[in-house]
Amino acid sequence: MKIAVLGHGTVGSGVCEILWNKKSEVSSAAGNPLELGYVLDIKEPEGVPYSEKFKKDFSAVLSDPEVGIVAECIGGLEPAYSYIKAALENGKSAVTSNKELVAEKGAELLSIARAHNVNFLFEASVGGGIPLIRPLYSAMNAAGITEIAGILNGTTNYILTKMFRFGEDYSSALSGAQKLGYAERDPSADVLGWDSCRKISILSSLVWGKTLKPSEIPTEGIDMITAEDVKTAEQCGFSIKLLARAKILENGKIFAKVSPALVGSDSPLAAVNDVFNAVLVKAETTGEVLFYGKGAGKMPTASSVIADIIECAKTEGSIKSVFWEDGAQTAAEKDSVSERYFIRTDSDVSALLPDAEKLFDFVYITSPLSASEISVLEEKINEHGKLLSKIPLFE
Amino acid sequence: MKIAVLGHGTVGSGVCEILWNKKSEVSSAAGNPLELGYVLDIKEPEGVPYSEKFKKDFSAVLSDPEVGIVAECIGGLEPAYSYIKAALENGKSAVTSNKELVAEKGAELLSIARAHNVNFLFEASVGGGIPLIRPLYSAMNAAGITEIAGILNGTTNYILTKMFRFGEDYSSALSGAQKLGYAERDPSADVLGWDSCRKISILSSLVWGKTLKPSEIPTEGIDMITAEDVKTAEQCGFSIKLLARAKILENGKIFAKVSPALVGSDSPLAAVNDVFNAVLVKAETTGEVLFYGKGAGKMPTASSVIADIIECAKTEGSIKSVFWEDGAQTAAEKDSVSERYFIRTDSDVSALLPDAEKLFDFVYITSPLSASEISVLEEKINEHGKLLSKIPLFE
Repeated sequence: MKIAVLGHGTVGSGVCEILWNKKSEVSSAAGNPLELGYVLDIKEPEGVPYSEKFKKDFSAVLSDPEVGIVAECIGGLEPAYSYIKAALENGKSAVTSNKELVAEKGAELLSIARAHNVNFLFEASVGGGIPLIRPLYSAMNAAGITEIAGILNGTTNYILTKMFRFGEDYSSALSGAQKLGYAERDPSADVLGWDSCRKISILSSLVWGKTLKPSEIPTEGIDMITAEDVKTAEQCGFSIKLLARAKILENGKIFAKVSPALVGSDSPLAAVNDVFNAVLVKAETTGEVLFYGKGAGKMPTASSVIADIIECAKTEGSIKSVFWEDGAQTAAEKDSVSERYFIRTDSDVSALLPDAEKLFDFVYITSPLSASEISVLEEKINEHGKLLSKIPLFE
Repeated sequence: MKIAVLGHGTVGSGVCEILWNKKSEVSSAAGNPLELGYVLDIKEPEGVPYSEKFKKDFSAVLSDPEVGIVAECIGGLEPAYSYIKAALENGKSAVTSNKELVAEKGAELLSIARAHNVNFLFEASVGGGIPLIRPLYSAMNAAGITEIAGILNGTTNYILTKMFRFGEDYSSALSGAQKLGYAERDPSADVLGWDSCRKISILSSLVWGKTLKPSEIPTEGIDMITAEDVKTAEQCGFSIKLLARAKILENGKIFAKVSPALVGSDSPLAAVNDVFNAVLVKAETTGEVLFYGKGAGKMPTASSVIADIIECAKTEGSIKSVFWEDGAQTAAEKDSVSERYFIRTDSDVSALLPDAEKLFDFVYITSPLSASEISVLEEKINEHGKLLSKIPLFE
């Protein structure tokens, strides 16, 4: 069976290297001979041993009946979406590392895959090289998952780790990350939480079987976190992490959010530092399970794409448990969950916080508050002084 | 398809409960209707809604063609081994939580399963409810795993956590664990490392495809660890954990051992406390990946058995990547790996340790030493005074 790799960027070139250099290992794991059939890229191949596989025209890939699996590593919605859709409609399985595509178009592509009895898999779209998607749809399939909380973005975790360890402020830690190549020149997608938002959208949709779109998930980044927040939190026994969280409520709706959160030092998430990612899954039968590893990088991510290729090659027909439906009203009302908040103010607001725990002067942990309640509190505090930070506790 | 549960003890009764109470969820995950067909136990059923399923005679199970999967939760080698062998030979898949059986008879049972085109799966035998075995044989199948290091025994990790947090000595922490039911009245299998040894034997055999028998793995428990060791290690920035380790050497042999080890506070294994288990997997393509969760307990373990039942029901034919061969000479020579050791003595032995780092008076970290070299050093030190502890560093 031939594999077509779409896009020869960082991840795509890693996938090609593994298919080329470890052909026999991959074939033996798949139980079928697999080979690199095509590499689709508008660029000319440079210094690679598989240069004769390059094509610029997708129709050559599509019309070759020996191509059984398409590995999309282009990124972005188009032309990735059109290529994958066409591949599935032509009876070819597709695998991708493209979180934007899976978050936005997952339900539709999974439904097309099912109609054509092939697979659409996306292990590499969340958590880079961490085996995560497959355990969720296979081993933990009937475990009764109730909640997911993840550190899903390595860039922001690196920045927060530097702020925690060295007392750096946000902008200095960000520049450091940019110098090392851990943050992009335009870091918005990472630091504003959009990347984490797409990833928790995928996990939530997969686990509970109903699309939860990124646009339905309240998302806040780390750009407002100060060195003072990190230091004060640490003095109280907490780390600050950018958490992407989702849980299913009794009414079947999903409450999800992306925001900085205070994590107690006894939580396994507190020990997740630098560019590492981790996902904590709570389930009725298994209790807490954590998956940890490098959430990005060429070879970890390419390795997950390869694992999906092997899974497609081994599997006859569509895997039933990889599926979610497009459905309206999956998201819970924004006030349906209350959380305690760590707040810092510039003056004594104890009178406004009769139920709060005072940690230091001007530093409090509130009683559980809904999204509306914390907004009302913020307004009240700002009438008397200034609310400097409000960060929910992860409990 | 009928499922037969062999043994109605802690794990077996959990499996029955899930099959009985969540029949539709399990069936839907499997893509086939599954039902509890038989419960084999010599005890009479008490207060369970599925009492009419109880049988005392295995032949009834074996001769019913509707039984497609046998879930063995008896434990021990016999009659578990004979029952599973007979089931596989009769074209029924088998799943088990029995680490002793898998460690001792895995290669033979996997070979019988393959010959009859059915499956023998054992997710629950290592790491309780943590999805671990399946990611190793599926997602990480072609990742080029080079090393595994795990905290695989909850009892010993609980005892070491108490010693670390409260300065308790070993025997007091052990009694505490026994009072809470975390340690058995005869705690030998846990505290002497045998349980961890069986589990690393299974992981090593699975990952590198060749049997590594428990008897080939040097195994040391935590019974010689003192409160003083734990305190001194902590002062140097280390925790002491009972680690089960295996790595593949350049000559293809496997170096494995079970022993207490010093783990630096920056390792994700250092944050694994109480009865939790974790397995760190190092692979060429993915880097370090960690799986963490409850390593024991009725429902976590039963949940893994159920995940295997679902996998068997979904899969046509034997899964090719779940296999290892019986082979002599898998284990590396005992001196083929050198490690640094943390040593404590009762007197100044600096003259015997020219290359060691002196941490405190009578406390050293040696240069890398093989098993023979550390033995020779121990003899030498004991000529002048007494070696109080020697614990390898996990690096």
